Amino acid sequence: MKLGIIGLGLIGGSMAIDLKKRGFADEVIGSTRTAVSAAAAGKIGLVDRVVDNDTCIDEADVIVVAVPAGVAVKLLPYILDRFEKQEKESGEPCSKIVIDVCSTKEHIMRSVHYHRMRRRYVSTHPMAGTEYSGPWAAIPGLFDGRACIFCNIEDSDPAAVRTIEKLYDTLNMRPLYMNSSNHDVHTAYVSHISHVTSFALALTVLDKEKDEKHIFDLASGGFSSTVRLAKSNDAMWVPILTQNRDNVLHVIDTYIEKMKQFRDAIDNCDEEQIGELIREANKIKRIIR
Amino acid sequence: MKLGIIGLGLIGGSMAIDLKKRGFADEVIGSTRTAVSAAAAGKIGLVDRVVDNDTCIDEADVIVVAVPAGVAVKLLPYILDRFEKQEKESGEPCSKIVIDVCSTKEHIMRSVHYHRMRRRYVSTHPMAGTEYSGPWAAIPGLFDGRACIFCNIEDSDPAAVRTIEKLYDTLNMRPLYMNSSNHDVHTAYVSHISHVTSFALALTVLDKEKDEKHIFDLASGGFSSTVRLAKSNDAMWVPILTQNRDNVLHVIDTYIEKMKQFRDAIDNCDEEQIGELIREANKIKRIIR
Repeated sequence: MKLGIIGLGLIGGSMAIDLKKRGFADEVIGSTRTAVSAAAAGKIGLVDRVVDNDTCIDEADVIVVAVPAGVAVKLLPYILDRFEKQEKESGEPCSKIVIDVCSTKEHIMRSVHYHRMRRRYVSTHPMAGTEYSGPWAAIPGLFDGRACIFCNIEDSDPAAVRTIEKLYDTLNMRPLYMNSSNHDVHTAYVSHISHVTSFALALTVLDKEKDEKHIFDLASGGFSSTVRLAKSNDAMWVPILTQNRDNVLHVIDTYIEKMKQFRDAIDNCDEEQIGELIREANKIKRIIR
Repeated sequence: MKLGIIGLGLIGGSMAIDLKKRGFADEVIGSTRTAVSAAAAGKIGLVDRVVDNDTCIDEADVIVVAVPAGVAVKLLPYILDRFEKQEKESGEPCSKIVIDVCSTKEHIMRSVHYHRMRRRYVSTHPMAGTEYSGPWAAIPGLFDGRACIFCNIEDSDPAAVRTIEKLYDTLNMRPLYMNSSNHDVHTAYVSHISHVTSFALALTVLDKEKDEKHIFDLASGGFSSTVRLAKSNDAMWVPILTQNRDNVLHVIDTYIEKMKQFRDAIDNCDEEQIGELIREANKIKRIIR
């Protein structure tokens, strides 16, 4: 089995490392958008060969699209077009599979929903990552023990789904199944809002603390962990926030409302109310270790 | 030298462990408010003896007040009163020192500003912690490499300040010096707001995800680290947020403003503006590793 990975950043690169090492693929090829990333991926040895997108699509049995959601939404139809062309030219039914690993699903799903080769596509979201990006951010074991969401598997070929289940099983991920609409609601709440709150926190503190030395000196571990996600890059997050716009707006509105409850309680020095809000928030302990 | 620690929780307990082990004190005694904590502190062996507050104050050469800010504000004048009484009874000038370790400074400072024994008090804030509390949360090495703020040292006896500098040097902390008003502004920005944003995030997600299983399944590392501080307890945080009310309100207002900028950019699907906000927030990279 030949695996092709388009996008050799944090996610694509980390997949390449483990899927090769753990024997899921005999050969792993990959492509990446910039010459710098290509050179880095080659030097680090993430893949056996760095190729161009079309070679990756034409040669690989399983293609992983690990690019920002804004690129994936255009690339997926292109890949399915190419599958179709290859099928016509060869006269053989296409057995290739393409998956994406993006953090938004509904928008991307719509881009291929009526494609004749739709069943060759499996929609997945491995819930793992760090705040870093690029080939140099790729690490072994990134996915171990985390959840991977499969969306709308009824629209994909069952054998193709089984192959991809095996791929994520090799990465030691727990599979979860839901439709793309539920996926986007849940990720807005447990992932996208965390990024927005971190970005806003970074902007707030940077705005105030012009003398950056003080932030560095005073930043406790608590601040560092709360603001960590603000290091996440725009290429990845701009399309996520726009593609999942409605859900994200809804969560932001709830969030601002909660923040205002806090603000009012502090403004009134209402110790009872502040305490109640904190004790309610503490319930997150039951859920997050 | 005999060290007395009032409050054997995360901070007091962790201090007890390292100051005893590293030889700063020959004997460490401590008191704690509840019978449960006293029993736990004794069982864990945080201190040589668990005593009551008055014994701790009367016997120890250096007394660390490691209780929530709301308790400290009443306890500090009481301790200085007791120093004064002891001085009168013995006819010898008091050589005892008391310090507090609270996260707000101006309010506490005011409570003893005109006390005749003010110079026996050194105001400090070791910037270290975890989201856990109680004697069972105490750990060795908690303070290593972190910053400790000394406030208004000109109001304390110079020899007392030197002793306390040695205490924090034993804990491997970097000393920083500022007045209590600046302290409260800076900590509002780099610590207090992080807690408020985490509390609000927890409330938002708990509000939505009634089916808690999904939060647990989907929570990526990013969400967990952003919401971590929401586990912090109300006994500690209610007085901090009320004592530092004006600064905290100011930061919350800036924060809500930044959040609304994000909201508007997402609402308008203004990719350029979202990207700009993210790239600006990314500058936190230069400051926080």
